Amino acid sequence: MLKNYLKTKRELVDLSIEYQLNKLKYPDIIADGMRYSVLNGGKRLRPILLLMVLELFGKKIELGLPIAVAIEMIHSYSLVHDDLPALDNDDYRRGKLTTHKKFGEAEAILIGDALLTHSFSVVADETRDISSDKIVKIIGMISRYAGINGMIGGQIIDLESEKKRVSLETLKYIHENKTGKLIKLPIEIGAIISDATDEEYKALEKYAEGIGLAFQIKDDILDIEGDFEKIGKPVGSDLELEKTTYPSIFGVAKSKEILKEVISDAKKSLNIFPDEKVQVFLELADYIGIRDN
Amino acid sequence: MLKNYLKTKRELVDLSIEYQLNKLKYPDIIADGMRYSVLNGGKRLRPILLLMVLELFGKKIELGLPIAVAIEMIHSYSLVHDDLPALDNDDYRRGKLTTHKKFGEAEAILIGDALLTHSFSVVADETRDISSDKIVKIIGMISRYAGINGMIGGQIIDLESEKKRVSLETLKYIHENKTGKLIKLPIEIGAIISDATDEEYKALEKYAEGIGLAFQIKDDILDIEGDFEKIGKPVGSDLELEKTTYPSIFGVAKSKEILKEVISDAKKSLNIFPDEKVQVFLELADYIGIRDN
Repeated sequence: MLKNYLKTKRELVDLSIEYQLNKLKYPDIIADGMRYSVLNGGKRLRPILLLMVLELFGKKIELGLPIAVAIEMIHSYSLVHDDLPALDNDDYRRGKLTTHKKFGEAEAILIGDALLTHSFSVVADETRDISSDKIVKIIGMISRYAGINGMIGGQIIDLESEKKRVSLETLKYIHENKTGKLIKLPIEIGAIISDATDEEYKALEKYAEGIGLAFQIKDDILDIEGDFEKIGKPVGSDLELEKTTYPSIFGVAKSKEILKEVISDAKKSLNIFPDEKVQVFLELADYIGIRDN
Repeated sequence: MLKNYLKTKRELVDLSIEYQLNKLKYPDIIADGMRYSVLNGGKRLRPILLLMVLELFGKKIELGLPIAVAIEMIHSYSLVHDDLPALDNDDYRRGKLTTHKKFGEAEAILIGDALLTHSFSVVADETRDISSDKIVKIIGMISRYAGINGMIGGQIIDLESEKKRVSLETLKYIHENKTGKLIKLPIEIGAIISDATDEEYKALEKYAEGIGLAFQIKDDILDIEGDFEKIGKPVGSDLELEKTTYPSIFGVAKSKEILKEVISDAKKSLNIFPDEKVQVFLELADYIGIRDN
């Protein structure tokens, strides 16, 4: 059931991304590069989370589509810049050439900049039937969660932590910010659009934090045990960079235990909702623990 | 008189920039890098233009300060990324080390990203006493003018035009977008905040286009005739890159004539306003033509 749900939603998100990006024509290399970087067979987890929250509250998912697309554009830009020679220097992502290998390095910097910049136009110019007060609030949140106090903060501490042992506290900061904030973002935006109560908002926030952390621990485990064909990038790169990860601190076996516990707690945080209403949230949490890519 | 006016306004803008950026603490390298990149003794032309329009309409300039700061942050991020080795590969700007020479290349990419991202938070979270409807409209405009259909579009065509002759049409596209859009932006935002009439809006837009073009032609001339000490970067870099510029197409003498005409037209476009109300706009247009840095 979850698989079909995700597939249907992913197709809708992909159509919405294409719809927004196909409006861009010139300069070709930027427009093509933006499409190449976003339309890459991604799982669309972040946009789907926003749509899931809207459905939970009985809202039309169309309401959130432009914002969902914008969040995926921000996620994609961060990967384009992360892959650059000065940062992770990756040639492949999901088995395809990275943006700078395909379009050139200067071009990839500007393509990333264009994705980040344009994401705010998609939210501000394309959103319909959400009050301007809420849109301003949402834009502020996107900017904070993706910026120095969010994703970029996590990226730089991650970068500065290569080749050295870091504390569990620092590792948690990296996880909470580098990947965690962009997973919390769509869930919290969904709650804002849906006028969730404080109690509901907090429950969803806790769930978001849980699956964000689970996602990252699983990523770390996959970097050790994964299959190149499935994860689409070389296995063992964390080890090579001497990165501190959950497995490097706790070992693989203990990390798997922690992962289980984090997933279980994430699911429990939703027990203020009737089970049948959050079925897909519960299944998704389990799926994050067992995914192989 | 203009000199004093600009100095007073520049000091106010600098204080506002510091106020906004000093809120950012961690990670240090990003917060420090953002301050280093923006607090660089810039002329603050773009923020000042926004304040000038608010004054023209008798509005309090505090209204526009956060947005003015955000525009300067976007201008600064574009310079940080432009200076990178993969792009212009510049070591100095205004006689100071460029951000990547000071903080490292990966760091400069992320510092630029953080400036761009945070600028939207400054607009969305820090603006007071402007309606949310207007803020959404303004954010959309910032995103469009700074993105693929604006500044970034101009940057990439400029980049792709190095080492080859381009048409005057292409050169105009570059000027209108790479530098022009970010000069029009604060003027148009000022007009939106001030509820300018269509006629007033169009007059200001035309003025903005004129001084934007004048600014660029003058820059091209300074690249040939300027003084390193004053312009803070090597003279003759356009020639070295075999860039098409106004002087390379028309020669320096004819370019100076065109510059004069563009400035004169820009001033004329404001003749729907009483002269004493737009004195500073008229003086600024003249100043752009005679500046030596």
